[in-house]
Amino acid sequence: MDFKVTPWDVEGLVDYDKLIVEFGTTPLTNELLEKTKELTKSELPLYFRRKFFFSHRDYNLVLKDYEEGKGFFLYTGRGPSGPMHIGHIIPFFATKWLQEKFGVNLYVQITDDEKFLFKPKLTFEETKRWAYENILDIIAVGFDPDKTFIFQDSEFTKIYEMAIPIAKKVNYSMAKAVFGFTDQSKIGMIFYPAIQAAPTFFEKRRSLIPAAIDQDPYWRIQRDFAESLGYYKAAAIHSKFVPGLMGVEGKMSASKPETAIYLTDTPEEAGKKIWKYALTGGQPTLKEQREKGGNPDKCVVFKWLEIFFESDDKALIERYHACKGGELLCGQCKRYLIERVQNFLREHQKRREKAKEEIEKFKYTGELAQEQWNKSIPEALRD
Amino acid sequence: MDFKVTPWDVEGLVDYDKLIVEFGTTPLTNELLEKTKELTKSELPLYFRRKFFFSHRDYNLVLKDYEEGKGFFLYTGRGPSGPMHIGHIIPFFATKWLQEKFGVNLYVQITDDEKFLFKPKLTFEETKRWAYENILDIIAVGFDPDKTFIFQDSEFTKIYEMAIPIAKKVNYSMAKAVFGFTDQSKIGMIFYPAIQAAPTFFEKRRSLIPAAIDQDPYWRIQRDFAESLGYYKAAAIHSKFVPGLMGVEGKMSASKPETAIYLTDTPEEAGKKIWKYALTGGQPTLKEQREKGGNPDKCVVFKWLEIFFESDDKALIERYHACKGGELLCGQCKRYLIERVQNFLREHQKRREKAKEEIEKFKYTGELAQEQWNKSIPEALRD
Repeated sequence: MDFKVTPWDVEGLVDYDKLIVEFGTTPLTNELLEKTKELTKSELPLYFRRKFFFSHRDYNLVLKDYEEGKGFFLYTGRGPSGPMHIGHIIPFFATKWLQEKFGVNLYVQITDDEKFLFKPKLTFEETKRWAYENILDIIAVGFDPDKTFIFQDSEFTKIYEMAIPIAKKVNYSMAKAVFGFTDQSKIGMIFYPAIQAAPTFFEKRRSLIPAAIDQDPYWRIQRDFAESLGYYKAAAIHSKFVPGLMGVEGKMSASKPETAIYLTDTPEEAGKKIWKYALTGGQPTLKEQREKGGNPDKCVVFKWLEIFFESDDKALIERYHACKGGELLCGQCKRYLIERVQNFLREHQKRREKAKEEIEKFKYTGELAQEQWNKSIPEALRD
Repeated sequence: MDFKVTPWDVEGLVDYDKLIVEFGTTPLTNELLEKTKELTKSELPLYFRRKFFFSHRDYNLVLKDYEEGKGFFLYTGRGPSGPMHIGHIIPFFATKWLQEKFGVNLYVQITDDEKFLFKPKLTFEETKRWAYENILDIIAVGFDPDKTFIFQDSEFTKIYEMAIPIAKKVNYSMAKAVFGFTDQSKIGMIFYPAIQAAPTFFEKRRSLIPAAIDQDPYWRIQRDFAESLGYYKAAAIHSKFVPGLMGVEGKMSASKPETAIYLTDTPEEAGKKIWKYALTGGQPTLKEQREKGGNPDKCVVFKWLEIFFESDDKALIERYHACKGGELLCGQCKRYLIERVQNFLREHQKRREKAKEEIEKFKYTGELAQEQWNKSIPEALRD
């Protein structure tokens, strides 16, 4: 295979059909998307229409549970080891759509413990600071503050109690197989899979995890033992990767700043980065471009428009053909994308400012947050 | 060697001098005991006078810290997997003496997580129930409710946050070396050493752990990394083992009910058990006993009197010689011990009943408990 996908690394031009076979997941069929449309009585957003989410586990059962009135809940997370970029936030927009349309609870786990444990040089204080920063970006997406609980593992330590029965189900060799532990791995890292699985048991309903497909292996352990604890196997819908500016291979990486647009970049910075670094599918000369046309399938600018920044299907298809036909020049497309990205950042950053006042609600005082915190305080302390 | 001491098992007649060499600890010298007397302005209790506590790590530094006004704190614990017996409670009486005389804080960790994780057949509910029962026995010892915090790991989950930086210091091979983990060990077990070490960092002072010497290996890991976290290495004083009724070898074991007197045994039951099972150093016939004398060094009855039930030194020595001289018969000694044990149980069980009203204070509302719980509740939830 000329591509590689693990929870730590994505390399090469990913063949998503092969990945479905390799990971043993199921394609997200048109039938399931139609069902989603029907149940939500809504048009599908571009992430689903354009199969950015392309694979799933048990999403059919999630829809069935919903239809039968059993309901479900959403669970996602963020490892706070640095600033968030465009690639990080897109799945949160898909999650927001699901919450809004199905009217369900959402739990967002901020894994400051994980990032501190797995990154040798990061201090606990640093991951806690990034937790705060990242939470602002997440809130800015616009979740329902009474149906969303954003919790930091180091604060919402009740999670430890929930993780114990899980940690009795998973032995070292199982964890090693998924996470690649060695004798040098810290004992906190080895325990961490139990903390990550705990939120799938926050409610006695099926949990649906929207995440990029590279995260799938983490949930295989949960699916192995969930039913033996009297709970549901975690369901998931899997997205493709958002490529970095430097090419459609791999994924946008926070460790290569020139390939990413951060949510805190000024619109000017973002514009400069795209102009300078975005790899297109254009020809070396204007003449060749006019004659042979460009290749939108190898163009990061087109990919970004497709995944997030151009919601108008008709406009997108026209652009595709105009590029192929040589009518459109790369500079024009870049300028169009830059404007879209800058508008998005301006709006996001405004909402991010406002999020500073809402953080309290999402973490502690909103309806769902309070419900969870109250559960975490022993009987005797409650009254 | 004809004896074996590990954190899981004690076999044979223990040579405590050899154990000091093997474990690399330091003898608890008369000089240190004198110093203890001087600083506490008190007569030493029998556990120290008779060298039931016989070994230590850094106890000299603990006394130095106390003398210099830096202070120290006590830390001990209990794994709640069943009822407590006489052998379990004796170290708590020594701990109580230390708290009272030095006026220091005491943290008692009830490791319901550990017992649930390490005992395949025990449910979480069962360890929580035993936690409640065991806490009553511990409170009955008579600790200061405003200077003692008794906490259950599954409730006081703030401990997880504290354990994270510890769990980043300990790798799998270190933990394996001390705890003997294998590929089949559950990931909760592997993490547990971090939870056990956490209370040694509850205060920025030296912690003193009174415990039987078989527990010493658990603290070696803590001593390896404590200073790198800016804290003190845990200090300890080590006790010998309380033998079971069936012989002076090994230690009283909860898994062999006929060798143990439980704190919840009725005085009648306890009396019958001692009468029936206690192994003495007596001769096969009355005639031989009168002629050759008994052997108090091989007599469980004498050991129990020495360790806990005869506080009068003169009376104990007289008994020793009377036995050796053949003046005393085993039945007489047994009856004497039975009376002492029954009196102890009656008193203990009265205090245990009263403890039901005090449990709230030790766990949640006492001064030290409140201080610890407040620390554990995020800023935003406090007001």
